[in-house]
Amino acid sequence: MAKKKNAFYAQSGGVTAVINASACGVIETARANKDKIGKVYAGRNGILGALSEDLIDTTKESAKAIAALRYAPSGAFGSCRYKLKNFDVDRREYERLIEVFAAHDIGYFFYNGGGDSADTCNKVSQISARLGYPITAVHVPKTVDNDLPITDTCPGFGSVAKYIAISTREASFDVASMAKTSTKVFILEVMGRHAGWIAAAGGLASDEDTEIPVVILFPEVTFNREKFLAKVDENVKKFGYCSVVVSEGVKGEDGKFLADQGLKDAFGHAQLGGAAPVVASIIKQGLNLKYHWAVADYLQRAARHIASKTDVDQAYAVGAAAVQFALDGHNAVMPAIERKSSKPYKWKIAMAPLDKVANVEKMMPKNFITKDGFGITDKCREYLTPLIQGEDYPPYKNGMPQYVRLKNVGVEKKLTTTFDISGKE
Amino acid sequence: MAKKKNAFYAQSGGVTAVINASACGVIETARANKDKIGKVYAGRNGILGALSEDLIDTTKESAKAIAALRYAPSGAFGSCRYKLKNFDVDRREYERLIEVFAAHDIGYFFYNGGGDSADTCNKVSQISARLGYPITAVHVPKTVDNDLPITDTCPGFGSVAKYIAISTREASFDVASMAKTSTKVFILEVMGRHAGWIAAAGGLASDEDTEIPVVILFPEVTFNREKFLAKVDENVKKFGYCSVVVSEGVKGEDGKFLADQGLKDAFGHAQLGGAAPVVASIIKQGLNLKYHWAVADYLQRAARHIASKTDVDQAYAVGAAAVQFALDGHNAVMPAIERKSSKPYKWKIAMAPLDKVANVEKMMPKNFITKDGFGITDKCREYLTPLIQGEDYPPYKNGMPQYVRLKNVGVEKKLTTTFDISGKE
Repeated sequence: MAKKKNAFYAQSGGVTAVINASACGVIETARANKDKIGKVYAGRNGILGALSEDLIDTTKESAKAIAALRYAPSGAFGSCRYKLKNFDVDRREYERLIEVFAAHDIGYFFYNGGGDSADTCNKVSQISARLGYPITAVHVPKTVDNDLPITDTCPGFGSVAKYIAISTREASFDVASMAKTSTKVFILEVMGRHAGWIAAAGGLASDEDTEIPVVILFPEVTFNREKFLAKVDENVKKFGYCSVVVSEGVKGEDGKFLADQGLKDAFGHAQLGGAAPVVASIIKQGLNLKYHWAVADYLQRAARHIASKTDVDQAYAVGAAAVQFALDGHNAVMPAIERKSSKPYKWKIAMAPLDKVANVEKMMPKNFITKDGFGITDKCREYLTPLIQGEDYPPYKNGMPQYVRLKNVGVEKKLTTTFDISGKE
Repeated sequence: MAKKKNAFYAQSGGVTAVINASACGVIETARANKDKIGKVYAGRNGILGALSEDLIDTTKESAKAIAALRYAPSGAFGSCRYKLKNFDVDRREYERLIEVFAAHDIGYFFYNGGGDSADTCNKVSQISARLGYPITAVHVPKTVDNDLPITDTCPGFGSVAKYIAISTREASFDVASMAKTSTKVFILEVMGRHAGWIAAAGGLASDEDTEIPVVILFPEVTFNREKFLAKVDENVKKFGYCSVVVSEGVKGEDGKFLADQGLKDAFGHAQLGGAAPVVASIIKQGLNLKYHWAVADYLQRAARHIASKTDVDQAYAVGAAAVQFALDGHNAVMPAIERKSSKPYKWKIAMAPLDKVANVEKMMPKNFITKDGFGITDKCREYLTPLIQGEDYPPYKNGMPQYVRLKNVGVEKKLTTTFDISGKE
């Protein structure tokens, strides 16, 4: 290449507490290699920003603002839920990307997302060969679902795990002190439609120093009302109270989500429930115990105030490594976290080929769930514990965490053509 | 008194992130005054421990364990929901207290709770005059509801306020970055059956540095569907997204709780809802916007990991002052927090007479809520901001906060009599 190329970076899918730390790693590493790489343009609202030529010029941000990304939850440039069509079905989206990339002299594509995004990134990496436009595409892993293959863990997950473990411990202390005359069962609903990684983190609330009766309802285990009630009852009899961590993805024997039990309001409208109130209702009917329930929802994945330092470090590292991989001439790859040892925890960045990542979902190993289906095994604990190590507190002002908001200055459009992205979900 | 008297301490009602800091203040101050005060006995599960002669000997705990109480959420000795009957209706409970106090040479009564507990403490203070047993009773204020009179704030509230303010800010950042193609409205349900103090804290998510569209639903303001939908719609049009903080105590024009809209599950069983899913349903029907909702429940009041340092300091201070007041010969009083100035924030401990505290509920001033009923005024902000100042992180081990559990060694029973407390709620 005669001239150094610009880079495109975009955030994709559900955001996390640390995805901006990856953005920080990408941009700081690009800035440190100014001799080899041009400007970093970010897509406003993810890949939509590329399709609609709505690019953000990150060079307008100060070094201080970019450094502050390390501490800010959410997606600083906006994210989106948008999956590119299959290349062979409809290549117009890819042709549009080339049009925009060419107009802005973009030669690097950094895509920060989960499984679907890895697939998109892989397709973009094939543009060079199939459409003749030279592009280097590197995927930056991110997902609270922790379901990407090859990488030991996914940035974003460790912080959710830490939040859920701490919240479960704290609420368990609360219910324990109320149990004599009041609430005896506390239920916390957590994310995880397909895999129980996040629910498993609830098991970390209890450890050898601090025993807590936690019953976990995994999406991997079909809900059985009688066994569940017996387990809760056993705990309440032994400890005086019980905590329940229920994954939003738990299904009953009818194959339907617990959360989707046909609740109707007074007007007959369907009520989009959570699983937690349904579990509460089952406990009320089956054991007649006083309960409280919480639904963590976005709080869990946005809780930068209690992010795992390990997670933040890894999120930054995969962002930085992505740029380094690209500069080293690698295409269609993803920085992966490789665990060297658990005790003490040691990890390094490895390189994963994207075709081995895309469209592969990593499920929880069977031997991570106890035989009764309600807890985590020592193996699971050994896996999870390192991921929540360390605190990485953001700066505070007036009692509130200071989360940077970038200026997000747009890059002047160069094209007269447009691309219809309206109505996309 | 020829001999120095022992003290009784109990925790009452819903626990908080900092009630153990008050316990720490009581016990450490008593230990520092060993020449004037004997052992501190704690009631196991609050006042029930006194009635059933189930006392905990706090002298069995190390100085280190007691100091660690400062960092532990929940009630270390157990709490209860139990209101003593009116003296003139049934004095048996008071006679029983005297019996237990006399058996264990207890001359000081420290009761750590909210409004109902202040009333109980006041009644106990009258035992001396009415039943001839010498007792000094001092109330230690605690309630996340922030509804005690005279005191500027109630220990426990500042930490919930900080948690809600931070959580609302974090989730708002999240939804802002997803809003282009996905969730546009985020709803967080918070505690507060009668007063909107906690909901008001959601307003702190937005400040002059970080503007966030937050719509607050206060229990003080009757819910109006049309006005609410118009406000959310306006915010979504202006900002692209909107956050809603809804108090569990919000009522509709029919006078019924929003949370109690007659939800039924598939089996026709009544579903104990939250307000958040009901609000979500209203937004879905009225504006057809994608939403997410969370219910913080116990997480908010147990979140010691992000407690307000101001709150922790004040919780400790009222515990310490209670013992000092008692040693100084004051009966039927409560340490109150007196605000000297807001900017900079200065406070001191004052003394409030219990008969002015008991059975008085402090509501939010009208001028704390904006005219449209959906926000907080500058006056409210000036009041709230100092209360969330400072972080007071607990110690961590293996990524988890270390919350002390005491040995809670029982005191040998001296009485052969018992007292029936079964079935009490």
